[in-house]
Amino acid sequence: MLTVHGDIRSGNCLKVKWLLDWMRRDYRWIEVDIMTGGSRTAEFLALNTAGQVPTLVFEDGRPLAQSNAILLHLAEGTALVPHDPYERARMWEWLFWEQYSHEPYVAVARFQRLYLGKGADEVEPRIMERGLSALQRMEDALTDRTWLVGDAVSLADLALVAYTRVAHEGGFELMSFPALRAWIARVEAAFGIG
Amino acid sequence: MLTVHGDIRSGNCLKVKWLLDWMRRDYRWIEVDIMTGGSRTAEFLALNTAGQVPTLVFEDGRPLAQSNAILLHLAEGTALVPHDPYERARMWEWLFWEQYSHEPYVAVARFQRLYLGKGADEVEPRIMERGLSALQRMEDALTDRTWLVGDAVSLADLALVAYTRVAHEGGFELMSFPALRAWIARVEAAFGIG
Repeated sequence: MLTVHGDIRSGNCLKVKWLLDWMRRDYRWIEVDIMTGGSRTAEFLALNTAGQVPTLVFEDGRPLAQSNAILLHLAEGTALVPHDPYERARMWEWLFWEQYSHEPYVAVARFQRLYLGKGADEVEPRIMERGLSALQRMEDALTDRTWLVGDAVSLADLALVAYTRVAHEGGFELMSFPALRAWIARVEAAFGIG
Repeated sequence: MLTVHGDIRSGNCLKVKWLLDWMRRDYRWIEVDIMTGGSRTAEFLALNTAGQVPTLVFEDGRPLAQSNAILLHLAEGTALVPHDPYERARMWEWLFWEQYSHEPYVAVARFQRLYLGKGADEVEPRIMERGLSALQRMEDALTDRTWLVGDAVSLADLALVAYTRVAHEGGFELMSFPALRAWIARVEAAFGIG
């Protein structure tokens, strides 16, 4: 059986959980509390020298890290990975953009507010500006389309919804992003997230 | 013919150039000076609303952004993408790790020193610590192996070498990383980078 080492409060970890649930795969979840050094123990570092959750471990003991790499591997051959090469490439584009231009701001603001107990004015303005800019870019992209890539839900939607749906916990107001809010509801419904 | 919009000083852009040269593909390179707002013009933003280089444009005008997504798309079917599903997934893991845990420190330190003219003591200590930690992780991974994934050179090596080979320009000394230096020479030789 697959084993997921993850922190259930982390969007990156939840992505993997939602996909496995959607695929009706059996798996074991081992909770790793990143706030008390759970991802820095010798045992955990032996699985992933980067000390990051989620880390998936296969039946044979081989590990795989990086949430979006895990999604790509698990979802291979499903409808969540477009057959069309260009659409598949655009999905990859969104996955890399999520980790580079969205997560480091939208998720980090939430982490600082929720995990570290920072006040609204204690989060670096640069983090808030870039997070807002990422959300605005998604709003623009979703204004005339149902899903981020092509005509069907894909891993791009799953990966991006993880922190977008809880952006308010980082102090990002979604009231002025109607297309984004409608898309969040669609993606949640598609994956049974709620 | 393919068109690459890129800044020739950027490792993310060079990755794409090196791959296209390795594949002996014809392409047109349009130089975008990111320091003078070249990636923020209306014309450029119409190609990529994220305002980031590199951006690839296909013959039919359709764009594709994010360096590692471009690599994955262009290299599909070549020896740079492992056939084995687990090795392919590990390659994805390195590609996402590169953008999340390596580039934001190793490349950003270089950017601040080289483009912004900052002195060694003006780069945030956190950036230097995390960059060093990323390089150490690579050194450890390469101590007993020739390539990052499996037994052959892959996109993981190409993507990671881009900023690792110029890490010294960001103030990272590679003298204590012998495995890393030997690997850089191997990857440069494999792709004719020099």
